[in-house]
Amino acid sequence: MSRSLSCYRCGDRYDDDTRVRCACGEPLWIDARPTASSWDDRPDRGGMWRYEALLPIDRPEGVAGAAGGTPLVRTPGLDDATGGRAFVKDEGENPTGAYKDRGSAVAVPHAIAAGDDVVGTVSYGNMAISTAAHAASLDRECVVFVPADISGVRLELIAQYEPTIVRVSGEYGKLYGDALALSERHPISVLVSDAPARISGYKTAVFEIYDALAPETPDVIALPASSGGFASGVWLGIRDLESAGLLAERPRVCLVQTAAADPLTRAFEAGATEPTPMSPDETGETIAHSIGNPDPPSGARALAAVRDTGGAVVSVTDDEIRAAQRRFAVDGGFCVEPASAATLAGVSRLAERGEVAADDSVVLVPTGTGFKEMGTGEAAVETEAVHRTDLSDRLESLLGSRRP
Amino acid sequence: MSRSLSCYRCGDRYDDDTRVRCACGEPLWIDARPTASSWDDRPDRGGMWRYEALLPIDRPEGVAGAAGGTPLVRTPGLDDATGGRAFVKDEGENPTGAYKDRGSAVAVPHAIAAGDDVVGTVSYGNMAISTAAHAASLDRECVVFVPADISGVRLELIAQYEPTIVRVSGEYGKLYGDALALSERHPISVLVSDAPARISGYKTAVFEIYDALAPETPDVIALPASSGGFASGVWLGIRDLESAGLLAERPRVCLVQTAAADPLTRAFEAGATEPTPMSPDETGETIAHSIGNPDPPSGARALAAVRDTGGAVVSVTDDEIRAAQRRFAVDGGFCVEPASAATLAGVSRLAERGEVAADDSVVLVPTGTGFKEMGTGEAAVETEAVHRTDLSDRLESLLGSRRP
Ligand SMILES: [Zn+2]
Ligand SMILES: [Zn+2]
Repeated sequence: MSRSLSCYRCGDRYDDDTRVRCACGEPLWIDARPTASSWDDRPDRGGMWRYEALLPIDRPEGVAGAAGGTPLVRTPGLDDATGGRAFVKDEGENPTGAYKDRGSAVAVPHAIAAGDDVVGTVSYGNMAISTAAHAASLDRECVVFVPADISGVRLELIAQYEPTIVRVSGEYGKLYGDALALSERHPISVLVSDAPARISGYKTAVFEIYDALAPETPDVIALPASSGGFASGVWLGIRDLESAGLLAERPRVCLVQTAAADPLTRAFEAGATEPTPMSPDETGETIAHSIGNPDPPSGARALAAVRDTGGAVVSVTDDEIRAAQRRFAVDGGFCVEPASAATLAGVSRLAERGEVAADDSVVLVPTGTGFKEMGTGEAAVETEAVHRTDLSDRLESLLGSRRP
Repeated sequence: MSRSLSCYRCGDRYDDDTRVRCACGEPLWIDARPTASSWDDRPDRGGMWRYEALLPIDRPEGVAGAAGGTPLVRTPGLDDATGGRAFVKDEGENPTGAYKDRGSAVAVPHAIAAGDDVVGTVSYGNMAISTAAHAASLDRECVVFVPADISGVRLELIAQYEPTIVRVSGEYGKLYGDALALSERHPISVLVSDAPARISGYKTAVFEIYDALAPETPDVIALPASSGGFASGVWLGIRDLESAGLLAERPRVCLVQTAAADPLTRAFEAGATEPTPMSPDETGETIAHSIGNPDPPSGARALAAVRDTGGAVVSVTDDEIRAAQRRFAVDGGFCVEPASAATLAGVSRLAERGEVAADDSVVLVPTGTGFKEMGTGEAAVETEAVHRTDLSDRLESLLGSRRP
């Protein structure tokens, strides 16, 4: 396929596929020029690689082959909370437990093909874990830049793949720009959240949703938003589907942010096309660690995705997130991380505002598993205690009332 | 499909599909009578449900639809350790992070269809988590019987789905027999590790391996063994493939146990057809929490699977398991739990004994994700520390030697 990059905003094109941003300042993405005949041309290939013709690289060996191909399941237990017909696209069922693997599966081999022996990333969460895993699988060195005050839990999850971990002091938020400069000056590709090859990987999530729901088209796709990278990938996927002539109506892209750091919600509500970066004073603490970027590098593009599809951006509180996380587990059977649970809380808000119709298909995209963060052993859990020999009597009283 | 149960050993058949064990004492499984034309007749369905015709129930809604469909990937980084060509069948990419979901996805709705409003299980690990999730998804009550001294971490993982958790004092190992009795006397199905409907679900892992590798046939399938339930499912899957006329040669089923509790290895080495239960004095501590059943209820059937396929049973130490877990991550990019890492350690043993040929396809089946148990924050992790403004200089020294 062609590897030319283009800018969604000004339309400029570039042939250097290691470039990340347009001269106009906005992030680039890789064009695929899809047609109906290039669609899903490798159904024999598992996961996201059935769309190989629409990706900038061929499927590599190793863990990349396990990325994507996550299930989309009808989940009636969440209908009430969404106001429509709920579907769950469980991105936690990726090899490192997050949608980031779709991006790393493309971006890491893509960087190696471009001549860089070493890959890196700026993250202390799912993106760091994913990038390190994919580099390990391809036997390449990886450098992960984390904040100086990273938690021991996060460090352990990243360290298992044995990347070089660099704790960076100074303003961590500035590292996005640093990463682009470092990649130019050193033999390393520091894969930021919206590296164009990552965005190509993310778009496959939409392809899978489309193919799983066909002939129905999803009405709403709800995802957590932080850097705006995943929202960009979802939008690119929708555009590819349209280019291929497969999509009659665009799904509404609904982004959910944590109220602790929600520059996209603020911009959306103000009718602005670009987010205003939030200062440290304006941002708060949140349990949704995976989201809450106060200065999202693909923020303007994410807002464009929302406007273009008739979607929305909403913010939710930690209390709403906790309640939604419980509902995912208790009513859906899914263990999702707080940032992912935010999708359900956000759609509930939209439903309250009358923006979800009862027959709308609502695809919730929990982007990461909850298993990474659970199991501190500190939660209070209610249990019964009984001796083995008294089990039958105890069951009698527990279940007796339901005996026919 | 027919729902008749049969005994692998004496051949007796039963029509009561809630029955678990044969009059001869051995566990039963559900016959499917597959033909080549019933094979994979629903490729449009995701995950394990493409084999719906070979399962005792139709696909339910909810999380069950997300079970199975895990990737099989060529993983050259593990070739050295296996002595052959390594493939990883990553069962951690199930909705609750373990192969148990294949069993729960069939057994929980199957129990409900049989008339029981409440399901239960005897487990404090992956089976408890999985059963509770599937019951929640179908809006049914679930009772989980755990040992009195269960860890807080385990309790939290199970409790998220809000089952009734009963801490049982007295000999926990006897609960398998208790569970069968309780299911007969109360309006509850206590789904034990080798409940026939679970075994039906497990066999789909083999179907997926077969379809992903075709036209090649796997030479070795290596899995951790505890109760013998998964080994039974793998064997049933191989038998179904043979009945359908699809399999020219049987893959060798290789089971790996922890040296801390390895009744199957002992029986295999002694040439016995049944394991001898190990006493508490004989069993040790292990990091491989998910395996180590001293009295495996499907032990004799698991040994029959090994003999029938020309496989083997081996035991490995915790040190070997730790080294293998590191290799899965560092050379493969996969985060697997210790019991799953045992598969690689076990195959290494076989390779040392000359039982793996260089061109053998070796399918390692890590049965559960490592993310549930990681992240205690207690591991020692080596990092670099650097100020943001010194990053370029530091990268120069880190990477300088590799500049062309
Ligand atoms: Zn531009
Ligand atoms: Zn029998």
